[in-house]
Amino acid sequence: MKMTSEFLYGIHAVRSFFRARGGKPLRLLLKSGNLGPRLREIADEARSLCCEIQFCDREQLDAITSNHQGVILYIESSSRSQASLEDFIDEASTGRIFLVLDGVTDPRNLGACIRNAATLGVTAVIAPRTNSASLNAAAIKASSGGVDITPYYQVPNIARVLDELKKLGCWVIGTVLEGGKPLAQVDLTGNLALVVGSEGKGLRRITRESCDFLATIPMLETSLGFNVSVATGICLYEIQRQRELAT
Amino acid sequence: MKMTSEFLYGIHAVRSFFRARGGKPLRLLLKSGNLGPRLREIADEARSLCCEIQFCDREQLDAITSNHQGVILYIESSSRSQASLEDFIDEASTGRIFLVLDGVTDPRNLGACIRNAATLGVTAVIAPRTNSASLNAAAIKASSGGVDITPYYQVPNIARVLDELKKLGCWVIGTVLEGGKPLAQVDLTGNLALVVGSEGKGLRRITRESCDFLATIPMLETSLGFNVSVATGICLYEIQRQRELAT
Repeated sequence: MKMTSEFLYGIHAVRSFFRARGGKPLRLLLKSGNLGPRLREIADEARSLCCEIQFCDREQLDAITSNHQGVILYIESSSRSQASLEDFIDEASTGRIFLVLDGVTDPRNLGACIRNAATLGVTAVIAPRTNSASLNAAAIKASSGGVDITPYYQVPNIARVLDELKKLGCWVIGTVLEGGKPLAQVDLTGNLALVVGSEGKGLRRITRESCDFLATIPMLETSLGFNVSVATGICLYEIQRQRELAT
Repeated sequence: MKMTSEFLYGIHAVRSFFRARGGKPLRLLLKSGNLGPRLREIADEARSLCCEIQFCDREQLDAITSNHQGVILYIESSSRSQASLEDFIDEASTGRIFLVLDGVTDPRNLGACIRNAATLGVTAVIAPRTNSASLNAAAIKASSGGVDITPYYQVPNIARVLDELKKLGCWVIGTVLEGGKPLAQVDLTGNLALVVGSEGKGLRRITRESCDFLATIPMLETSLGFNVSVATGICLYEIQRQRELAT
């Protein structure tokens, strides 16, 4: 995973990074003045890891990013430990879920999708290298710690990855706004790749042709659709609901 | 519904407002230069409604709001036609869903919840007057047209509204991060009020005590939870899934 950002911000993102212990913190910026219990806990954690702490005025923090909640953490760019996508695919296993985002360009939506993925047991999130949001600070913040649980891969060719996943026994389920089989009627209990398209345009033709099945979330009013992170959350919920029932 | 904003922006929000024909447009600001088909359609619609059109430089539009997609529509503040909440509650009917947001303060999250509500057949969205996001331009944009389909009420006392809904035959289902009955095991087929709390704090004690049942979305990793709009989308999906099965 290539990190395009070298800092995290917000209480949840920083706390999750410390808890995961997967990367190297370089410098912690904290707002000066009274710290609340959550910022104090973060400061203690940084001290125990011998991470340098620097106290800053609100204005200095604001100049780096908005929405920082009084805390910004610089980390070593390449410091997140990462297995390769092949490691996940090669592993013989059952009930794996790969979430494929085909054209999600808004970093906040990407982060919210990764948060859902982490909460609902996804093995890895995969997106094309072009026309996809990269894992910048806004995406990391929106993931609410999810990026430290679930890896995100940007690959040169989604259709090829889907073919590989199929060869390894995954069903490829594409989600479409209209015309697919109702989601709850699709068997979602095996290894699978769930493919979600961009909000505006849906799945690209070439991606759609790689799908074994197309599924649609039933809607009473189809004109609005869902935000892509909501659609993803609903599909992942349905996958886990079926698996719970199947066990 | 009190409107705190007097303009809408973005192609989807403006188009939905015209289509709903529920309010009075005052003045349409469009980017100057070549209009794409969607902006041309909006301009035609405005002309047919005798709404004044003003062409502006991008900089002028940017000064009003970001993310406008070349279109901003001023509307009469009080122009959305609104029945009162009592009209909905008094009406004898079956299968009604009221979505109660107890402490959603981020306008984008509010908008995304209203979008889900409109897509999945919610009768009305209700929130306390204090400590809730108001329906400002950012919320309207995020609702993607949902505010023209599903009404949003801010009420002085949520507990009292929940009591009224109960007297009229609604079950009140509160959602909690942990400790509730698994969502799919709660009977969601009758008239009901779904109560969703704030992301950070969940339901307030007084609201929680008003609930007939508490439900939890099963999670594989409970530390992150869901964005409130995702949690709402999942619950509404499950409600409609059960109703589909029951018919």
